[in-house]
Amino acid sequence: MGIGSNKIKYIQSLKLKKFRDRHQVFVAEGDKIVRELLQSTFQIKLLCALHQWIDHSREIIPEKTEVIAVSTAELERISTLKTPNQVLAVVEKPSEEWSDDLFRQGPVLALDDLRDPGNLGTIIRTADWFGIRHIFCSPSTTDLYSPKVIQATMGSFLRVRLHYTPLPALISGVQHIIPIYGASLDGRSMYEYTPEIPAMLVIGNESAGIGKEVSSFIRQQVKIPSALMQRSEGLNGTGTAESLNAAVAAGILMAWLHGASQKH
Amino acid sequence: MGIGSNKIKYIQSLKLKKFRDRHQVFVAEGDKIVRELLQSTFQIKLLCALHQWIDHSREIIPEKTEVIAVSTAELERISTLKTPNQVLAVVEKPSEEWSDDLFRQGPVLALDDLRDPGNLGTIIRTADWFGIRHIFCSPSTTDLYSPKVIQATMGSFLRVRLHYTPLPALISGVQHIIPIYGASLDGRSMYEYTPEIPAMLVIGNESAGIGKEVSSFIRQQVKIPSALMQRSEGLNGTGTAESLNAAVAAGILMAWLHGASQKH
Repeated sequence: MGIGSNKIKYIQSLKLKKFRDRHQVFVAEGDKIVRELLQSTFQIKLLCALHQWIDHSREIIPEKTEVIAVSTAELERISTLKTPNQVLAVVEKPSEEWSDDLFRQGPVLALDDLRDPGNLGTIIRTADWFGIRHIFCSPSTTDLYSPKVIQATMGSFLRVRLHYTPLPALISGVQHIIPIYGASLDGRSMYEYTPEIPAMLVIGNESAGIGKEVSSFIRQQVKIPSALMQRSEGLNGTGTAESLNAAVAAGILMAWLHGASQKH
Repeated sequence: MGIGSNKIKYIQSLKLKKFRDRHQVFVAEGDKIVRELLQSTFQIKLLCALHQWIDHSREIIPEKTEVIAVSTAELERISTLKTPNQVLAVVEKPSEEWSDDLFRQGPVLALDDLRDPGNLGTIIRTADWFGIRHIFCSPSTTDLYSPKVIQATMGSFLRVRLHYTPLPALISGVQHIIPIYGASLDGRSMYEYTPEIPAMLVIGNESAGIGKEVSSFIRQQVKIPSALMQRSEGLNGTGTAESLNAAVAAGILMAWLHGASQKH
């Protein structure tokens, strides 16, 4: 009984995208997230948990789910958390397919080459807050299913679906259905107009912003004006930050979109 | 010549708040930040840098500044960065004193028991973007001068001054000068009104929000409404994130304040 060395190696291998892709699974950890998973439509392939956790959770674990009781030491070996939290689940990746109908149902986000896992996790959590249910990611965008992103979403990955797909092809198709807004330092101030919704909001790479190819499809660039831009007359050149953190900028523009939905 | 073991120990000790407080200094690293520091009013007590960096930078280093040439290996020993970047500076902490005039000059932020260094760094960077020049922190708020926060601000600590002080006493004094807005899940929707500026915006702890004592001084609680709140009629209970990341919430409300300044 207990967890064999093959299972340990298998779970440890899932820290790498290559093996998550091969097996089409990912790892989620902690009492709260796993409880939410068990009440969702996600398929849990394997649960590794401390004895006490299993005893407390029998009622919510489906009969056919494979459950392995592990010791604290074993949980530490398979966990990616600094402080492992009772339970780890290996979960089947959901389908990334979609139909065009979803663009008419509410605002969506597109991420062009976003690289930082913490930023992606925070953006998913913010999208969840504002009721954004779909995020389209360029294939170069950091992987949702890395342990760091999954944990940073604080459970929001359960409600926000991510689709990895080349953005130029996607946007050239949907631009006839909904307006496309792109976050940019050269755009029109967000304070000057109210967006039409539903819409797609495009956020670019942390350093380079939205790529050229994707930009060519964006009709409306939107800017979060800085205090410096405001004083561009040169009256007060005290300087300002060169950029906003990508997750903060995305949050400000999601709030801007959400404001439009509150007015309609 | 070179860096002695006493200097190495001294610089390493500055990772701890206790020693930063004792010596009233902090550490900042990297070519870009140190160049900005050299052009600022901050006092640099000591520069440790690679030979090449010193050769390239002679013109901008004041004559009386102590400069030590270090090897790559030595820089790695004193650095807190994963990838040390040419130069490390030991810098004198600026004064935290202030006069009441500053409250009339522009919006200010107050942080009540904010704990995460990454969040604090991001909030300082966002404040800088929106031209907020002063942040008041409860004494329990994480230390600006920890290496992680300093680096996360990406140089914005040069333009945004932090003051650690008990907030109830501060706010009870300034509430007669400017309106105090507090971020809260129970407040009035930010979409329903335009704030008066200048103002103070209060952001609370990541889990617990604004503490009771500080809350009692806040006249206007402001809420970033979630999609769930919008559907509180119970028509669509798909759930939503339980909260926003503190730095994202602060960013959204700073953008809200900034919008008011664009209308005046």
